[in-house]
Amino acid sequence: MKSEILALLRERGDYVSGQELCGRFNVSRTAVWKAVGQLKKEGFSIEAVQNRGYRLVQEEEVFGQHELESRMDTRWAGHPVTYYEVLDSTNLRAKLDAEKGAPQGALVVADMQTAGRGRRGRSWSSPAGTNAYFTLILKPDFEPDKASMLTLVMAMAVAEGIREACGLEALIKWPNDIVVGGKKVCGMLTELSVQQEYIQHVVVGAGVNVGIQEFPPEIADTAACLEEECGRRVPRAQLIVHIMKAFEKYYEKFMETLDFSVLKEAYDNRLVNCGREVCVLDPKGEYTGISRGINSVGELLVELPDGSERTVYAGEVSVRGIYGYV
Amino acid sequence: MKSEILALLRERGDYVSGQELCGRFNVSRTAVWKAVGQLKKEGFSIEAVQNRGYRLVQEEEVFGQHELESRMDTRWAGHPVTYYEVLDSTNLRAKLDAEKGAPQGALVVADMQTAGRGRRGRSWSSPAGTNAYFTLILKPDFEPDKASMLTLVMAMAVAEGIREACGLEALIKWPNDIVVGGKKVCGMLTELSVQQEYIQHVVVGAGVNVGIQEFPPEIADTAACLEEECGRRVPRAQLIVHIMKAFEKYYEKFMETLDFSVLKEAYDNRLVNCGREVCVLDPKGEYTGISRGINSVGELLVELPDGSERTVYAGEVSVRGIYGYV
Repeated sequence: MKSEILALLRERGDYVSGQELCGRFNVSRTAVWKAVGQLKKEGFSIEAVQNRGYRLVQEEEVFGQHELESRMDTRWAGHPVTYYEVLDSTNLRAKLDAEKGAPQGALVVADMQTAGRGRRGRSWSSPAGTNAYFTLILKPDFEPDKASMLTLVMAMAVAEGIREACGLEALIKWPNDIVVGGKKVCGMLTELSVQQEYIQHVVVGAGVNVGIQEFPPEIADTAACLEEECGRRVPRAQLIVHIMKAFEKYYEKFMETLDFSVLKEAYDNRLVNCGREVCVLDPKGEYTGISRGINSVGELLVELPDGSERTVYAGEVSVRGIYGYV
Repeated sequence: MKSEILALLRERGDYVSGQELCGRFNVSRTAVWKAVGQLKKEGFSIEAVQNRGYRLVQEEEVFGQHELESRMDTRWAGHPVTYYEVLDSTNLRAKLDAEKGAPQGALVVADMQTAGRGRRGRSWSSPAGTNAYFTLILKPDFEPDKASMLTLVMAMAVAEGIREACGLEALIKWPNDIVVGGKKVCGMLTELSVQQEYIQHVVVGAGVNVGIQEFPPEIADTAACLEEECGRRVPRAQLIVHIMKAFEKYYEKFMETLDFSVLKEAYDNRLVNCGREVCVLDPKGEYTGISRGINSVGELLVELPDGSERTVYAGEVSVRGIYGYV
């Protein structure tokens, strides 16, 4: 009920009488008073004036369960959302939840991760109070080899969410990174659980650098955060909600045909270095060519100097512009 | 140390002096005496005679951690082995262990499962004190689409383990069942966790009906247990150890080329209905043909009446002899 009260006060932008709240949620005045008291304790500024009721005083976001729940105006992506102050890793928590029956759309959010993970077992720096770490549970009914395309769907969603929440031009560095101003602001990690030849669940996790001030030295030159790039505070719950809205839209589009062609144009438009020279760091041998965007299954196409085209699979490959990280 | 003492007493088959045990494990006489006391409490019959030492009196198996550990004479499959009296599901436990870093070869064994699972979310009846439920953790470095072949490797291992442990002719009902005397005695469930395009881990679980007396009505006609088929007690730890030994052998053979052709002949020899008419219950439509064994990637080949060959993928398909279950 607390999230619903919060959502109603926010929507109204003015006083809402205790009586109206009682009627709306079919509870006693004491119950309403208690709920408001708890919200205030969590940090929300709520004014109570006799004969007028309660009013949410506009303030800085209180990142947490109720902020997320009260703002999540999606149909399924982000429902339910569960917020944790500390987790080992949102992907790990989401996998456990999925095993225990969490539905498609369930979202795990943490303020801090003690064992945040990147690709191939790399760690992902996840300090408290500053960034957005979240993992979405999906249970699509398609073959396991299509699951890698869900990373691309999330990439489009994160890029759009960042644009909506802070007006920054976010680009996709195929396949797992989001880049703003030439620096990495988000990494993604998709994991799937397969039973025989069926997907049991897929978890798509993302870590977005929102306000982090200091990076580990090995990524200091290539990483950035949104607040630094846009020069103002970025409310994390709103960012996550924007990402979920965009995810829902792109996911449903993708699921219509299970063919990435329908999203190719939009994707390629945000693909960093599309049409430009890139260097493909393939463990079997480095090569350069012109990035020609993705194909219908989400693989990157690179045109070689002799005019032939090579398909780049995700795996261990890294694709860079010929000068530096992006 | 308890498992090592047990193994030594079993190997010697005669009295082993306390002094020798102290020296061997570099502990005090009191420590040896305590360890033996605990083993006795667990149900092992150990005789202690002054001036002669300790002797293991041959008795019925005490299924559990020390019995398994003391008998596991494999190189890696079954190391470490962890025994639980009750688990929700050995596959689930193995997946959690794998996430937390359990190595390739780690084996989870339970005396009872409260939520034993079969394919496609079906439940697997798992009462206490009578059957063998176990799951092996693997971390192979190959593409996810090859993982289904590990079920076939386990099928060969279970069939061979049953033959070694009780002398029964066990056959494989492609892809997931083991059959003795025309009835199912074992089901298998393989699950894999994939990150991007890499396998993080595969768990291969099996439930073997060893001594179960009563089956759920829906499977009463098609299920059997080993003890009923061979007419004597089957020690569960010894069965599991035989299966692990066979798994190690077949797995290493398979890993040499990642091509199932090297095991095809041995597999087909144990494949129930090979060369005979089968009915393929494909959700898209039932059809009959002659089973021609597996191909190089472990799919079943069925020759149709017009002479053409069809490839059967695991998935939802069920393959039966034209008369009844097998």
